[in-house]
Amino acid sequence: MLVSFTDLKAKLRQILSKHQFNDNDADLCSTIFAQSTLDGYHSHGVNRFAEFLKTITDGFVQLNAVPKKLLTLGNIERWDVGLGPGPISAHFAMERAIKLSKEYGMGCVALQNSSHWMRGGTYGWQAAEAGCIGICFTNTEPNMPSWGAMEANTGNNPLIIAVPNDKGHIVLDMSMSQFSYGKLWKYDMEGKDLPFPGGFNATGNLTSVPKEIVETRRVLPTGYWKGSGLSIMLDLLVTLLSSGRSTSKIGEMEVEYGLSQVFICFDANQLNDEQTHESLIHNIVEFVQAAKPMKEGDTIHYPGSQTLLRRAKQLKEGIEINDNIWDALDKL
Amino acid sequence: MLVSFTDLKAKLRQILSKHQFNDNDADLCSTIFAQSTLDGYHSHGVNRFAEFLKTITDGFVQLNAVPKKLLTLGNIERWDVGLGPGPISAHFAMERAIKLSKEYGMGCVALQNSSHWMRGGTYGWQAAEAGCIGICFTNTEPNMPSWGAMEANTGNNPLIIAVPNDKGHIVLDMSMSQFSYGKLWKYDMEGKDLPFPGGFNATGNLTSVPKEIVETRRVLPTGYWKGSGLSIMLDLLVTLLSSGRSTSKIGEMEVEYGLSQVFICFDANQLNDEQTHESLIHNIVEFVQAAKPMKEGDTIHYPGSQTLLRRAKQLKEGIEINDNIWDALDKL
Repeated sequence: MLVSFTDLKAKLRQILSKHQFNDNDADLCSTIFAQSTLDGYHSHGVNRFAEFLKTITDGFVQLNAVPKKLLTLGNIERWDVGLGPGPISAHFAMERAIKLSKEYGMGCVALQNSSHWMRGGTYGWQAAEAGCIGICFTNTEPNMPSWGAMEANTGNNPLIIAVPNDKGHIVLDMSMSQFSYGKLWKYDMEGKDLPFPGGFNATGNLTSVPKEIVETRRVLPTGYWKGSGLSIMLDLLVTLLSSGRSTSKIGEMEVEYGLSQVFICFDANQLNDEQTHESLIHNIVEFVQAAKPMKEGDTIHYPGSQTLLRRAKQLKEGIEINDNIWDALDKL
Repeated sequence: MLVSFTDLKAKLRQILSKHQFNDNDADLCSTIFAQSTLDGYHSHGVNRFAEFLKTITDGFVQLNAVPKKLLTLGNIERWDVGLGPGPISAHFAMERAIKLSKEYGMGCVALQNSSHWMRGGTYGWQAAEAGCIGICFTNTEPNMPSWGAMEANTGNNPLIIAVPNDKGHIVLDMSMSQFSYGKLWKYDMEGKDLPFPGGFNATGNLTSVPKEIVETRRVLPTGYWKGSGLSIMLDLLVTLLSSGRSTSKIGEMEVEYGLSQVFICFDANQLNDEQTHESLIHNIVEFVQAAKPMKEGDTIHYPGSQTLLRRAKQLKEGIEINDNIWDALDKL
């Protein structure tokens, strides 16, 4: 079915209020979930809303947790967010990083005891909307074998990089596995193979059959050894900067919570005047898009360009939401 | 043939002095080239030394260029390094970032008008040796088609992340293409196929035959759309922070020079006490290495672990250098 952004947000807000979210938190979280769905990230939007609520009703994630600052080093801050809801903690941290960058040119905020922030791109867009270059990354539970390993010994540790742009912000939102479990399930449900090998089958060979990968749980790091190495480094960075849990320690928790996250901002306005900023960016984007495409007539995309198209389409035509998912919201 | 580190360094130093490098610069550059070769990165060490010198004798790279500070924003600095030799400029920038991080906890140095820094890992090790978490990245000439493009419209833009560790630093040094041209040539010379597809052939299909990729020049971004997106973001970051040339603008130069680069440091000592720092790191490394390997008896590696093994071996047994490469040094 098709639902408007306003209706989706109102519905989610109502549910959150019913579950003791205060007005500010209900506003913020309903906006974040609705915006992610509007942008086409259903798996980290409305489709994950029930699971998000469950981590709270199960008592793992703490509503009304109060962030506590543990360390200030110039424009670096370390906060313990007390196992609060991930989107609220991450939004708070990016706001702090934005504020620090407006004061110092650059700011860095590290969180310990955070939770799943849902769609990481949310906080990239947040930084870009504030005129900042934003970089953020998180660790996860062990969900990916490193290159050469049989068992999950690292996370898929998403990395987000965002750049503000007058023609629509440029936002990369990538995890370190070639395909998410969400993608594997989607392809499997549609009876399709993956476009490229996404993991190993039971005989230890690379496979494009999603079911075989879900069974072995041996998802492939993006770029083989490269995404594997980057995943380990991101875990080291978030753990050292936050002095919080590494992927290894998160693996010892009952469910995936108590994560470590880092948010870095640069104030674009202090780096270049507006005209220079836009001219440097436009030159890069135009050069990328001027190349001959592999398929004649295709548009060459850059990070965020497809999100902007989906957003515009769903804002106009309504957001396509699975009927069962929509109906299930009434039971929350 | 086998050459000791000391002999290799002395030989390179002699050549640099002959080419008007002053004592400091000759020391630094000969050390960097010898160390890269010792660590097994011949393609960015002794094997590239003649090409490095040629950019100077051809008049593109300027010996004795004096770096000029263009901007200070708290712990961010922007420098114009005046087209000086890449390794000297990059070493200078990482030293500044280290110094800023010791003062402020974090430091960031952006360079415009730099040159090819040779092996990027050099500056990661430099930061880690100084007790800093180091992150650096550079753009390059257009040498890789972005995902969906037929023509090189982005660079392979190497990214380095380093973490100091008492048991040997942890250093990731990755470019955004799945295989470098150096690797393609090496496999081709040995008559071997690549272990995984590394680019497109003339009919537009992915191929593991290195010669076919060298012919089309359509190397594959690591992780397909993911490395492609990251490459575009890194170009945006270095260009905006340095206000320097993007990959597009470097493509307009006669050869690859005038690059933009960024160096970021965090002072590890101010983030955690020594015992906490080591315990957080050891836990991550031990967890990664405790996983069952794909091949029984294999060691699971992490970024930098194989470099440490190669370094120890070549330091003891001598550095294996191609006879022709060694003989050719006498003609420089």
